[in-house]
Amino acid sequence: MEEAKPVTAGLVVIGNEVLSGRTRDANTQFIGASLNDLGIRLTEVRVVADSCDAIAEAVNALRARSDYVFTTGGIGPTHDDITAQCVARAFGVELVCDPAAAALLERHYGPERFNESRRRMAFVPEGATLIENPVSAAPGFQIENVFVMAGIPRIMQAMFKSIAHRLSGGAPLLSKTIATDLGEGALAADLGRLQDDFPAVEIGSYPSTAQGRMGVRLVLRSTDREILEEAGAACQAMVVSLGGAARELDYTA
Amino acid sequence: MEEAKPVTAGLVVIGNEVLSGRTRDANTQFIGASLNDLGIRLTEVRVVADSCDAIAEAVNALRARSDYVFTTGGIGPTHDDITAQCVARAFGVELVCDPAAAALLERHYGPERFNESRRRMAFVPEGATLIENPVSAAPGFQIENVFVMAGIPRIMQAMFKSIAHRLSGGAPLLSKTIATDLGEGALAADLGRLQDDFPAVEIGSYPSTAQGRMGVRLVLRSTDREILEEAGAACQAMVVSLGGAARELDYTA
Repeated sequence: MEEAKPVTAGLVVIGNEVLSGRTRDANTQFIGASLNDLGIRLTEVRVVADSCDAIAEAVNALRARSDYVFTTGGIGPTHDDITAQCVARAFGVELVCDPAAAALLERHYGPERFNESRRRMAFVPEGATLIENPVSAAPGFQIENVFVMAGIPRIMQAMFKSIAHRLSGGAPLLSKTIATDLGEGALAADLGRLQDDFPAVEIGSYPSTAQGRMGVRLVLRSTDREILEEAGAACQAMVVSLGGAARELDYTA
Repeated sequence: MEEAKPVTAGLVVIGNEVLSGRTRDANTQFIGASLNDLGIRLTEVRVVADSCDAIAEAVNALRARSDYVFTTGGIGPTHDDITAQCVARAFGVELVCDPAAAALLERHYGPERFNESRRRMAFVPEGATLIENPVSAAPGFQIENVFVMAGIPRIMQAMFKSIAHRLSGGAPLLSKTIATDLGEGALAADLGRLQDDFPAVEIGSYPSTAQGRMGVRLVLRSTDREILEEAGAACQAMVVSLGGAARELDYTA
């Protein structure tokens, strides 16, 4: 079977607070799942420090190999918010004041509170277009295939929704999840053969302790619904033939 | 002030299930915080797919630039567990059966259940030493500065504890967290000056909506306790001078 080249994306999570373990990143999960729904595969995530070298390197590495790149974090008004200047450096362009961004920030804060620090949030790499922030005004921006968004999950999610229409995905990846009480080692050989029989289906095996019981979740994913159904039936039959119980779960991710 | 070069680490999180958004990674937070306690800074995390090219590339990139590299995921018995062979490839060595690993797996499963798939878990790159798995027997391994661990958080954490004594950190990074009700834009200019005044302190600003109230947490980090105390006092005074309330929180990360 000829399969179209999948549309891919990379994500750069910017923030010392994630690396230090202070904050648990929530953006990867949201972006991974949302891209999946759009038929785009998140193929790599890099979490990097608040350092221009690290940010520019990650952005350049991922934009060269992915159809889309997203970044989260570092677009506020404080000295540690350096994403815009680092992305400008990655693209070799100037950081310029976007008049539309300045106007909407001034409207949001009022002339009194629109100080120098807040004005910083109006600066974007030359040639960038804005990404709307319906929560707290300060916009993200897009330059070429790179989308720069806030780190606060609620704001990031609102920004993502506002740019989803700019993304063109391929065929969505459909999935089937089969839960079983068998151990991984008991089903591994047969599962490997099932994978060989269905090369167009990506089969993952995940040990699980849901509801306190050890078990395995087998996740089958394919862009072809018919083949996925066939592989799912074969997988359930395999589990039963090994003496296990198979139960299809209602997951979509 | 002369500061010793910090001891650094990279982390490779291996797993399609994290990229698809199905699973929210918990290992970065644990490893980042645990390394911090040991005086080691996690400087980059890469989440990569179950692909040998991607795994080997990430391991090689991070081990060239970090004192330590950790990997999580992909060391079970199923066909999608390919970490050991990919790390062997990254190091240009053979994958060999470790007799001690084989013996402990056979003891754990019993000769009957120690099948070909489970025997796969005894294979490690030539020259590797084992990492104990007190939860489910199947060991991780260390080769040079790379530590390969399980993806299931409970097992990974037990493995990490068993290898912590193999790691030599530098001076631990101490931290101070000051919560304020001021907005980031209101304190950004003064905070930038504070950062300039204390170059040996890393100052981060994180908007927060804890307890439903908008506010900012200022996090100061340094290996020098005295300078950190001084910067903390200056930071509290700064917030008060701007008309805000400052409260030191009891965080350590």
